[in-house]
Amino acid sequence: MQDFIIIGHKATTSGNFSLNDMPGSAGRMDILCRCLNSVFFLSHDLRRDVQAHLLLLGNPNPPRVIRFNGEKLRYLNPDERSAGALIKKALESDNISFLETCSTPGVWIREANLQTLLNEFVKDGRKIFYCREHGEDIRTIAEKIKNGVFILGDHVGLTEDEENLVLEKSTHIISVGPLSLHADHCIILIHNELDRLMARK
Amino acid sequence: MQDFIIIGHKATTSGNFSLNDMPGSAGRMDILCRCLNSVFFLSHDLRRDVQAHLLLLGNPNPPRVIRFNGEKLRYLNPDERSAGALIKKALESDNISFLETCSTPGVWIREANLQTLLNEFVKDGRKIFYCREHGEDIRTIAEKIKNGVFILGDHVGLTEDEENLVLEKSTHIISVGPLSLHADHCIILIHNELDRLMARK
Repeated sequence: MQDFIIIGHKATTSGNFSLNDMPGSAGRMDILCRCLNSVFFLSHDLRRDVQAHLLLLGNPNPPRVIRFNGEKLRYLNPDERSAGALIKKALESDNISFLETCSTPGVWIREANLQTLLNEFVKDGRKIFYCREHGEDIRTIAEKIKNGVFILGDHVGLTEDEENLVLEKSTHIISVGPLSLHADHCIILIHNELDRLMARK
Repeated sequence: MQDFIIIGHKATTSGNFSLNDMPGSAGRMDILCRCLNSVFFLSHDLRRDVQAHLLLLGNPNPPRVIRFNGEKLRYLNPDERSAGALIKKALESDNISFLETCSTPGVWIREANLQTLLNEFVKDGRKIFYCREHGEDIRTIAEKIKNGVFILGDHVGLTEDEENLVLEKSTHIISVGPLSLHADHCIILIHNELDRLMARK
């Protein structure tokens, strides 16, 4: 299984946002919606053996982690509004706590921060890959990134504190190509590398 | 320069559609919007040496071609609604004819079909690549696809007539990987191959 953690620094943690203004008042929620599309969609199918973890750090109730599991996921369509509607529904859940609450099939929400998420993956023996410019080229380490946990930032990247935390836990810094790309585009390139790896076996 | 032609078989050709229902009443316009994002966006920048040609074949006024030029393009943000708004504005242009009308900076609309588009590119000596499953792997022919014209279908692929037309004009059938992907994801993978090619030079 692959896991993708995407950090939305300004992404609202209230369900009271408008699907018509996700880049604005919802704090660049559109970025997280596009990442969900990239994590899960194949042509006429969903990737099943994959999870997305959206870390929402905007007001009023940060931090929130929304987990999407490809095996169980329902009601996700490719468009941004569809992803936004599932995020909104999750944020509207009653009694969000440190324990996960299921908001719709395949979607869970809880209060958790980056450190908690990373510690859980490390405890499970998972390898953590920080996706950033000037890292190792995924094409040269495709075999190693299988079953990886991939950390991606939004439009502002990671803060210094987040980066220090991730570097402490991560196995590799990886890059998808020579140019700096949006997180959702990076996810497509990571998937492609792994799809090719699986096809060769 | 790279050119991407994306065919929207059901995409409405009236500007009277709702940005809140692009997958539904606008005829899967969301697909074309995501393709625009993939064609143009880098992190904090736009790709300049590239064009997108959306071929809209839905009711009530097909066919329409909307051309987006990266060098001149303005007002495009990464979210689907932003792309949808530029498409809507183009479709609302007065007196759409066989000659291009500029609707917003870097965006032009006209009445044209696939055959016209392909003939123009062939006349200019451009190489045409049909992106489909079971084609040649782009990684093996990266050098050849530079300055290519890439044809991609929407969720229904190409019709038999369209496919025959494209096969008659195209240099190669190309594939981006072992799995069947959405058009916007294919565009990311084509760009990455060319970015890598340019970086090696």
